[in-house]
Amino acid sequence: MSRFLTILLCAMLSFEMSGCREKDNQPSNASCLEVIKNRTSIRQYTDQPVEKEKIDNLLRAGLAAPSAMNKQPWKLVALTNKAKINELGEATGKPPISKSTLTIIVCGDLTKTDGTSEDLWWTEDCGAVTENILLAATAQGLGAVWCGTWPSAERFNKAREVLRLPENLVPYSMIAIGYPNENPTPKDKFTEDNIIRIE
Amino acid sequence: MSRFLTILLCAMLSFEMSGCREKDNQPSNASCLEVIKNRTSIRQYTDQPVEKEKIDNLLRAGLAAPSAMNKQPWKLVALTNKAKINELGEATGKPPISKSTLTIIVCGDLTKTDGTSEDLWWTEDCGAVTENILLAATAQGLGAVWCGTWPSAERFNKAREVLRLPENLVPYSMIAIGYPNENPTPKDKFTEDNIIRIE
Repeated sequence: MSRFLTILLCAMLSFEMSGCREKDNQPSNASCLEVIKNRTSIRQYTDQPVEKEKIDNLLRAGLAAPSAMNKQPWKLVALTNKAKINELGEATGKPPISKSTLTIIVCGDLTKTDGTSEDLWWTEDCGAVTENILLAATAQGLGAVWCGTWPSAERFNKAREVLRLPENLVPYSMIAIGYPNENPTPKDKFTEDNIIRIE
Repeated sequence: MSRFLTILLCAMLSFEMSGCREKDNQPSNASCLEVIKNRTSIRQYTDQPVEKEKIDNLLRAGLAAPSAMNKQPWKLVALTNKAKINELGEATGKPPISKSTLTIIVCGDLTKTDGTSEDLWWTEDCGAVTENILLAATAQGLGAVWCGTWPSAERFNKAREVLRLPENLVPYSMIAIGYPNENPTPKDKFTEDNIIRIE
């Protein structure tokens, strides 16, 4: 009998440590390849706010992105004020933002670039930041969608105005985030047609 | 005694399933947040070729990226031909490429965009593809570095020429990949200075 209990206990421990368990919708131990495969755009959210710890994980993931010459030419706006969220969604014509409980705006900081209009390396860095945040959301059981902002001057100027950001900050992307209220199947976009192999 | 063996067996099973174990330099079960945090640019590689299965995982990760309006305006070149790799590294002035055993070139496919010169949404999609591949490399025990290509016309034209790609494909980034031959500490880039909280 005691051997049976030992086996049961160990089996529970294995499961606990397996990283396959979801706790509070938080599968944060899912493998990275699985998270990349399972990420999909989520545009409907519940009213449940995103916990501070998860917000910090999202911001840390974003700021861990690579940047050309390690210039880190970015600034992240973490917006949880519901009135401002609604105003931003309305002004930029993006319903998922209005429905979200958290929107992160990834901005390029032009004071950290070389200042010429041809210098668009910062846009690549901000792209990496955005993708990291989307994956960190999925990894934490959150849903998110990338709302394209730059290069639409109309859209990034509206966002800058609503958020009262200085001229040197260019909103590059707006990421609507919250607890999912829909469960779409991730698209399988793999096709050999999009691969050229030179061996 | 048999109880001791049972406990030992279960403990081994727990460790096996814990996802913390690295096998053949392949920590593919590492949590996504850990991979994002631990990714850092690797520019020195051993001669060991990257296995076909890992290459396929990299390509699948890239093609799983989000894209504006789901246009998937991209094409991936998986380059393992060492002579071509050397030629590409030389032509574009990127030593990590010459040292790599695999270089993936992420290209925008302009036939899948709206065709105007103002349409730069494809660059954001290619940014997400590139970051996914960098993370999938780290997750599989590989090292990689993002060699910026677009918007330098000189650089993307050189790459297109070496790879004999058609005009509609614009090399956006070149990712040098291989088994790491250096072990740099990932930078901690988190700073509250780069965050604006609106609560």
